[in-house]
Formats: sequence, C-alpha cells, structure tokens
Amino acid sequence: MTREYNVAILGATGAVGRRMIEQLEQSSIPVKSVKLLASARSAGKKLKFKDQELIVEETTPESFEGIDLVLSSAGGSVSKKFLPEAVKRGAVCVDNTSAFRMDEDVPLVVPEVNSEQLKHHHGIIANPNCSTIQMMMALEPVRKKFGLKQIIVSTYQAASGAGQAAIEELKKEAQAYLDGKDMQADAKILPTKGDKKHYPLAFNLLPQIDVLEDNGYSHEEWKMIHETKKIMLNDMNSQDIKVTTTCVRVPVPISHGESIYFTVEDENATTDEIRKAIANFSGNVVEDDIKNQIYPQPINAEGKRETFIGRIRPDYENKGAFNMWVVSDNLLKGAAWNTVEIAEYLVKMDLI
Amino acid sequence: MTREYNVAILGATGAVGRRMIEQLEQSSIPVKSVKLLASARSAGKKLKFKDQELIVEETTPESFEGIDLVLSSAGGSVSKKFLPEAVKRGAVCVDNTSAFRMDEDVPLVVPEVNSEQLKHHHGIIANPNCSTIQMMMALEPVRKKFGLKQIIVSTYQAASGAGQAAIEELKKEAQAYLDGKDMQADAKILPTKGDKKHYPLAFNLLPQIDVLEDNGYSHEEWKMIHETKKIMLNDMNSQDIKVTTTCVRVPVPISHGESIYFTVEDENATTDEIRKAIANFSGNVVEDDIKNQIYPQPINAEGKRETFIGRIRPDYENKGAFNMWVVSDNLLKGAAWNTVEIAEYLVKMDLI
Repeated sequence: MTREYNVAILGATGAVGRRMIEQLEQSSIPVKSVKLLASARSAGKKLKFKDQELIVEETTPESFEGIDLVLSSAGGSVSKKFLPEAVKRGAVCVDNTSAFRMDEDVPLVVPEVNSEQLKHHHGIIANPNCSTIQMMMALEPVRKKFGLKQIIVSTYQAASGAGQAAIEELKKEAQAYLDGKDMQADAKILPTKGDKKHYPLAFNLLPQIDVLEDNGYSHEEWKMIHETKKIMLNDMNSQDIKVTTTCVRVPVPISHGESIYFTVEDENATTDEIRKAIANFSGNVVEDDIKNQIYPQPINAEGKRETFIGRIRPDYENKGAFNMWVVSDNLLKGAAWNTVEIAEYLVKMDLI
Repeated sequence: MTREYNVAILGATGAVGRRMIEQLEQSSIPVKSVKLLASARSAGKKLKFKDQELIVEETTPESFEGIDLVLSSAGGSVSKKFLPEAVKRGAVCVDNTSAFRMDEDVPLVVPEVNSEQLKHHHGIIANPNCSTIQMMMALEPVRKKFGLKQIIVSTYQAASGAGQAAIEELKKEAQAYLDGKDMQADAKILPTKGDKKHYPLAFNLLPQIDVLEDNGYSHEEWKMIHETKKIMLNDMNSQDIKVTTTCVRVPVPISHGESIYFTVEDENATTDEIRKAIANFSGNVVEDDIKNQIYPQPINAEGKRETFIGRIRPDYENKGAFNMWVVSDNLLKGAAWNTVEIAEYLVKMDLI
C-alpha cells in the first residue's frame, strides 16, 4: 500500500502559501491530510484544499504532532522558531525562507540541479531564493556540459517577491499615478518592509531588494552569489564560479526577469550548443525565435512552472562568453512549486 | 555685438521636439528666431517659444533658407531627406536620430566627453542614442583616470524612448490591467513600431528595443556597442574597449536605468576613487548613500539634465571590476538636452 502523508502548510494565507496549496493539489504526493497554519491574525480564515474546506489554525509547537511533511513560507523568524519543533516531532520540513539556507547541514535544493543533496538532510531542506532558482535552471545545463567560469547577472524582479501586499501596493500606486495623484502616500512596504524609507515602485525602478549591507551589496544580491555557489559547488564561499549581481525591483506584479552574462570553460562552445543544452534540461522552455519576436515575457510566464530562456547570443568580443534573458514565475518555480517539487523528490527518493 | 542665430526645430511636436524647445529657451544660445517644423500632419499646430506663439510648418527644403542652426528629432528618414538640404543652405545641424551617427565624417558627441570632435564637423553633428549617452557620462571619468577594458550593460529603458505615443500606450494598458481588462488591444507600437508583433509593456518586460538582427542582437544593443567605441575611441569597430549589451524595455514612462558592470586597466583602483572620479565629472550627480537608502530612481531623475549614479561597488572576486546603477532622463540628457548642449558648445567654440 502506498504511504500517505499528513502535510502542514506554514504561512498558508500568503501569496506563496496559497500557491503551495494549489501546487500540492496538483502534485504526485499521496496526501492523507492537510493542516493550514498561520499567525494568530490569520487564524480562522477558510481556504480550500481540493474540495475540502479547511480552517486556518494558529501555529504552535503542538501543531506539528503527527505531521510528516511541512511546507513553510511564513518568514525567516517563524521558520527558525517552529521548524525545529516540527523536526523534533518527526516531520520533514521544506522551508522557503532564508532561515536555514546557509546552514552547513541543510541541503539547498533545486531538484533538477542537485536532488542528490536531499540524501544528506536532517529534517530541514531549504528552498533557494526565487532569483537564484531560475538562474540555476538556466545555467546548470551549461555548467554540466561546458563548465562555468563567471556569472554577471542583473535582475528585473517582480513586486510579489515582497508578498501579496506589495502587489496591492504596486496597483494602488499605479492607479494614483494614472489619476494624476501623488504615489508616495501608498508606498508603505517597498523596497523592503524592514527598512526605514519606502518609495513608490509603480512606473519606477528600485535598485534595492532586501536591506543594503555594509559591503555595498543588498542582501538579495548577497544571497544570489552565495546560494549559487552552495547549489553548484557545495561550498558557499568557493571562487570556482565567480558571481556578481545587481538586483532591481521593477513594476511587474509576478515573474522575475534576469539578464545573465556568463563565461564557460569550453571556449569552443557555440550558441546553438548552449541553446540546445538549456532546452534539453527538464523544466526549461527555450523561447528564442527572434525572427518571430519570440522571447520570454513576465505576463506569459505567470502561472507556469517552467523557466523560460531566450535572447541567447554570444559576446562577440570574448570567446566563451554569452548573454541570455531568463523569466520565471517567482511564486511558482521561484517558491511554491520548487518547494512542493522538493517534497515530491523526497517521496520518490524515499527520504521522508 | 553678439551674433544671434536663426534656429529651426525639426520634429517640433514630438516628445523630444517639445523638450528641445524648452531646453533652447533655457540655453545660453542667443536666439534671433525660431522656426518649428514637422510633417504635414502636424502643420498648423501652435506651440510657444518663451512668450511667442509659433505655428508649426510643414518641412520642405526651402524651410531651411536663412537658418543657422537645425535641431532635429523627426526620425531617421526625415533627417536623411532634409538635413543635407539644410547644410546646402548653410545651416549646421545637430541630429538626434540614428541617420548619420555611424558616418565617418559626422562627429558623434556627448559634449562632456568628446567636444573636441565638434571641430571636425561638416555641417552635421549626431547626438548618440539615449542609452549610450548616460553610459558615457558615467564611464568617461572612469576611462580617463583608470582605463576601461570591458563594459557589460543591461538596460531598463523607459517607454518614451519610442515616443510620446508609447507613453500613452503604456498608460492605457496599465488602466486596462487595473480594470481587469485585456491589455493586448492597446498594444500597437511597442516593442517597436516597425516590427510585426506588438506586446503590452504595462506590468511586463520586453527584451526587444528596435528590431532584432540576424546576429542575435537588437539594433539598440548594436548601437550601444558601436556608438560607445566611436565616442570613446574614435573607431566604431575597435576592440580596445569590449562592450556587450542587453536592452530591455520596462514599464516606466521616462528615464532609463542601466546596470553597468565594467573592468578597468588599473587594478588598484578603489571604489571610493571611482566614485569620486564620477562625482567630479561635470553633469554627473552621485546618489550613493546606502545607509540612507539613497540611489538613483527614474521618478527622481525625470525633468533633470544630470546623469545620476549609485550602487557603485566592487565585484569582490575580480580585481578591477565594478558594478553600478545609472539613471537619466532619456528625453533630456538622452536626447533634447544633449542636442541643445552640443549647439551651445558649437556657439562657444565658434564652430557655427
């Protein structure tokens, strides 16, 4: 008989949490029961899993009694507080926050890239940052076939990376702008909730995602650099692949864009070979037909699990160097889907 | 007695043309008379120069009789047709289209960078592409002091680069989106007027500016590469500075953003020295105070003549390599102001 799992979704009412419910509904995981957990403020809300109406409960350590699998996206401090409690009670946790990503004994996993790492888990598996995941999807087939030397990436990140409230803020500001009103009054969250100043994103660009650190990088930029190394090289400080990043928030609700410049070890690699390697990688869709103006766009990627790659072309002045443009739904492959996909692999690999 | 100039503005009714009028009003050029020229469709419209009401006239070769200075922004084909006629009649033309930019005997000028080139003009001076100009402003002080080896740039370009109608299109689409309606019906110009397919820009990203060429680059990307070499090295095909580009249209009405990665010859150059060199360059404003969340934003740059530079920081894994974020009003320093500024230099340098 197939084993069935008792699943808890922590942070069930957020933009990612709601999508975790949807992705779990569509997954291959045999689900016995679903428990929706959130803060006291959200407790009592009703949400559906398939045809079943569920009432959101306030999270306590005891919430995890009898739970086999936790999918978590309620913020770093919530994960830090509750996931050890869940592990203590025998659950395996897939965490979409940054709480444990850099812990040495916590695998940081994009299933198509490094599912082998799941074998070393001790109860917690971390889901990488959204902007890291889609970059890994596009670059791992390149690394495997041609070797990767350097990555220089500029991101075009959607408001939803800062949650559902940031989408609403963007829309409010946009309406104010179109009505000829001042947008500043609506700027309460972005660029990042925890910081002092807030700026409008609508019809604007904000080169700050997460807090800015003393080294000059934003925390988001720092995460992309070190998560890439941990995923591809199992060492967050390795210089085997050099990475630098500039992260910018753009007035788009859902789906991140990334302009990625990369150099490969095999200097004879051709654009066609690189395009083919990317296209053959599970989870990737190459949209790269310039004659017909086909290239990835956020409005087309929204709601899809895949990572879309286009505008692949050489840097004609540097052998082994290329540019490409990558778009993916930051709430799905960048968050909810990658989390549920990790859980699917845990089940398939008999690691839960 | 100071010489006074008869000035014609070609393409006076467009987004750039209207700003040329404003910039000329505020310039140091002694203006005797202003003639506003446009297509037959726009003839008869009334516009003001200072307190004077002027009627827009249809452009003919005879329009340029008695004109000393032409400021032109009516599209490449119009420039090709009429500017030689104006030169024949003794006028000096500053052209904001791409018509003559790559002609060997036409100087391509950002006054702060290469005003010396004005001395070699034969009646036509070309204004570079908007995205090239602000990159030159940010990088020329770096090149002069530390030597430039490589530029890798990703652009975040405003709708107004495609004209006033593209701004209106963006706003219409945004309102449709906020009203829950389909945006496709409003997509008639972008990504580029001359191409087959049109896509919504509102709440979206379009990695196509101008037409896509067989080499995989868009024409905008090609322009940034070759104009940079012509401006900095006087040779559009030189490899002394290697340049590669990815150009993306973003849902912003006015002001382009650019994420620029660059490497310098002097590997001991520090971030502080680079910041200082950029700040001391006339026309630049450094907005780079991360403790106080100060960095360039399009909504702050709009309406200003300066180029704003921030987020300057090293690539910690490559000596002599840096990232920065540059924003400027694409219709002013990127177009109308740079054009009028060239004319100011022509007057000052006694070249007209």
